[in-house]
Amino acid sequence: MYTLSELARVAGATLCGNGDREIEGVAPLTRAGAREIAYCASSRYRPQLDESRAGALIVTAEDAEGLKRDLLVCADPRVAFARVAMVLCPEPPAVPGRHETAAIDDSAQVDANASVGAHAVIEAGAQIGPGASIGAGAFVGARAQIGAHTRIEPRAVVMHDCVIGEHCVISPGAVIGGEGFGYVRETDGRWLKVPQLGRVIIGDRVDVGANTTIDRGALGDTVIANGVKLDNLIQIAHNVKVGVDTAMAGCVGVAGSAVIGSRCLIAGGVGIMGHITVGDDVEVTAMSFLKGSVEGPGRFSSSLPATNAEVWARNVGRFRHIDELARRLRRAERAIKQLLSGGKS
Amino acid sequence: MYTLSELARVAGATLCGNGDREIEGVAPLTRAGAREIAYCASSRYRPQLDESRAGALIVTAEDAEGLKRDLLVCADPRVAFARVAMVLCPEPPAVPGRHETAAIDDSAQVDANASVGAHAVIEAGAQIGPGASIGAGAFVGARAQIGAHTRIEPRAVVMHDCVIGEHCVISPGAVIGGEGFGYVRETDGRWLKVPQLGRVIIGDRVDVGANTTIDRGALGDTVIANGVKLDNLIQIAHNVKVGVDTAMAGCVGVAGSAVIGSRCLIAGGVGIMGHITVGDDVEVTAMSFLKGSVEGPGRFSSSLPATNAEVWARNVGRFRHIDELARRLRRAERAIKQLLSGGKS
Amino acid sequence: MYTLSELARVAGATLCGNGDREIEGVAPLTRAGAREIAYCASSRYRPQLDESRAGALIVTAEDAEGLKRDLLVCADPRVAFARVAMVLCPEPPAVPGRHETAAIDDSAQVDANASVGAHAVIEAGAQIGPGASIGAGAFVGARAQIGAHTRIEPRAVVMHDCVIGEHCVISPGAVIGGEGFGYVRETDGRWLKVPQLGRVIIGDRVDVGANTTIDRGALGDTVIANGVKLDNLIQIAHNVKVGVDTAMAGCVGVAGSAVIGSRCLIAGGVGIMGHITVGDDVEVTAMSFLKGSVEGPGRFSSSLPATNAEVWARNVGRFRHIDELARRLRRAERAIKQLLSGGKS
Repeated sequence: MYTLSELARVAGATLCGNGDREIEGVAPLTRAGAREIAYCASSRYRPQLDESRAGALIVTAEDAEGLKRDLLVCADPRVAFARVAMVLCPEPPAVPGRHETAAIDDSAQVDANASVGAHAVIEAGAQIGPGASIGAGAFVGARAQIGAHTRIEPRAVVMHDCVIGEHCVISPGAVIGGEGFGYVRETDGRWLKVPQLGRVIIGDRVDVGANTTIDRGALGDTVIANGVKLDNLIQIAHNVKVGVDTAMAGCVGVAGSAVIGSRCLIAGGVGIMGHITVGDDVEVTAMSFLKGSVEGPGRFSSSLPATNAEVWARNVGRFRHIDELARRLRRAERAIKQLLSGGKS
Repeated sequence: MYTLSELARVAGATLCGNGDREIEGVAPLTRAGAREIAYCASSRYRPQLDESRAGALIVTAEDAEGLKRDLLVCADPRVAFARVAMVLCPEPPAVPGRHETAAIDDSAQVDANASVGAHAVIEAGAQIGPGASIGAGAFVGARAQIGAHTRIEPRAVVMHDCVIGEHCVISPGAVIGGEGFGYVRETDGRWLKVPQLGRVIIGDRVDVGANTTIDRGALGDTVIANGVKLDNLIQIAHNVKVGVDTAMAGCVGVAGSAVIGSRCLIAGGVGIMGHITVGDDVEVTAMSFLKGSVEGPGRFSSSLPATNAEVWARNVGRFRHIDELARRLRRAERAIKQLLSGGKS
Repeated sequence: MYTLSELARVAGATLCGNGDREIEGVAPLTRAGAREIAYCASSRYRPQLDESRAGALIVTAEDAEGLKRDLLVCADPRVAFARVAMVLCPEPPAVPGRHETAAIDDSAQVDANASVGAHAVIEAGAQIGPGASIGAGAFVGARAQIGAHTRIEPRAVVMHDCVIGEHCVISPGAVIGGEGFGYVRETDGRWLKVPQLGRVIIGDRVDVGANTTIDRGALGDTVIANGVKLDNLIQIAHNVKVGVDTAMAGCVGVAGSAVIGSRCLIAGGVGIMGHITVGDDVEVTAMSFLKGSVEGPGRFSSSLPATNAEVWARNVGRFRHIDELARRLRRAERAIKQLLSGGKS
């Protein structure tokens, strides 16, 4: 429980109203009760503000006008709300201890303040830091290192020798350190596997989404820097580097040895070619294909928004002949020039 | 074992031939034997009908002409076959009981007629309904609810507080209720996590494919309505709503807070933007990007079919200059107009 | 430990320098030490050759010129390196034995030389060949067959009745034999499930990436031929056939009943339509959509490279009117023809 004036301080917001009001939790505008705080992200939801039964509201100065309520007023209600919610709804700390069914190798070093869930497997030489939790059925391979306060969620897999920093979350089903996809073609057409001898190195405060896969490096390492946020079902191939605080939405695929800068925003479904370099502060819009290196800052796109399927089919048909179209236009321009200059044909 | 007249009733088809023929199973046209029934979905396969050794065939009236066989005749052989197959090859019911290696919290309520497999984990306060089965190594988090006759397949994960209805199938590796991808940027560029406090609510008769991920809501819930069918490797982000009987093929990604109507058909590889509304009975063709809200019914597309790579490269080159092309055409048109009106240049 | 002349033989390369030099491992150019061998794949890295402290280098004849080092000279350093690395860094063989926590049905046949990890589950009638390893927490369903020296990695799932050949790798989280996505629409709009009665049959030397899913056939089988290599997060739908030595990069989706030839190269993020036939030796470029059948050999594409988002938006706007553009061009051409032939308007 916090008072509204305490929350104003946490949020970096201006208090309007009763600073002694006690707030216990967060909720959406339409469902919040007297001991809960809600926020209004957009003036679109302004009408809901009057009707909301929330004990307190986080709003912009503009939306605050004329509102006779207990308010936290700030420039960006979403940020203020996130700060307040982190305080009101903290993640429950890991409960130290090992479930009796966990299979932990004798040579693994599991901190006394770490938590190990049912049927988790921790192999030889692995290290689990203080406050870390290894979820039910999760797998931590030989010599892997899990930093302090990092949460490996149920059924996630961290393969041998990989290193994960502090305060990370590896979501259920994620696979860290699978073998990279490295083959060369033998003269008889068969694929010869190239041993994948590197690791995955993940920094601090990195979140990895459910069923996302990050392959180990071939000779060097795959490296995910501090503060990176990866959504679900993302594929990061071997030897990729991802810079500080870069975020990727779901279903992104990054091919081998791509180097991605810091603070990039990669939207959902994007494909990033192998062996390219992406500068800092680059944005790529959803469903685009980043094929070549780009410098940042900048915003890049190749996505096509869906339209009526019949209209689309007609346009695609024309597109197939766009080269011909361009050549016909050139001829037309020449003819016009001729005509304009006197029509000497 | 069923007689052909019993199967005719099940299929809603017209019996032609020996109604007493006994049928034990289903098989493809080319492999079916005397006690099996096969179907012919398309007149393309008409020649195989004569050669098939199947005990009985399901065909259209058109294909039935001149066929001296035991037949079930109907308008849609695929539907009739599905009905017959459900009867001849029913899913084996869950065998009640708990594997000795399952880790079930004392406070979980597991129905006496539910089945719990080897190394499954069921946490505190979870509820497992009658006839439900929790597969080997599956995880059911605290307070999650699994409805009657629902099958959680091996290694699937249902996180805390999520609710799954009756007669659902959650395929291997699927993750229900991972944390939503919600962050706001702090003034120093770091990402601040927005607590994801909602749940995933799944209705009845919903199928979720292998390694598909459905994130829990941020403040509200992510909701999948009755009868929805999701294929493999689909990503459903936080706060998405999917309407009754909508089906999505593999590799679809749906971004946060999208609202999708009932009976939609979303083909493989489609991306759906966040915060948009998709009407009922909307179809989206494979590999398209639905960027804005659309009303239904309607069919939408933005997919480009692959062609010869060299031709494609040439067209892409032109496409990059399509804006210039359009402006040149406008100039040409003006010049022509001038020439036609007397050529006063 | 091998001598350089032994490695020259393994690599099929020409030895230049001290054949008695002892080599223990492989490393990247920039990090290799005196007892390690490195390779130079491209003349771009030529400057690093002089500075490298590697005991030996694998280079092309061109790059070898003037290099006073112990060398293996060959046409394709990547292939030579892969051969050498396979010898210097062999995969550790499976350690025979069963972890005490593994749940193995009494009727399963597990070879005495197979390895079964912690919390693995092997169901009734399954067969595990000699030298095979079933990783921690992996699941092998009833009557499934795992060939000799095949590695099922941690948390991978092989469902009932599936057959996997010899020397395969099934990566963590992969799901082999989930139910195919087969439904027909009942007259009331509901989906009726079509029982998925087939299997997945995987040949020898097949690698399947992390969290990749391969569905079982509906009536027939899904078949992956010898030597196929599948990267992470790939979806293979029911009844698909993939030919010998075909390779697919991450995030590819193949829809039901597609038949893909031998030695194809399917780049990342490609979508392949259902029920089409793809010839041998077909290449599809990254992020393309193969919608119709194609004959091989050939290279196909429909990918659009991302560009500056503003320029892109302008071009997309024009593209939406390309049909109109084409019709206007036709009119302009007619007008020009008229003008050229005397301007009789």
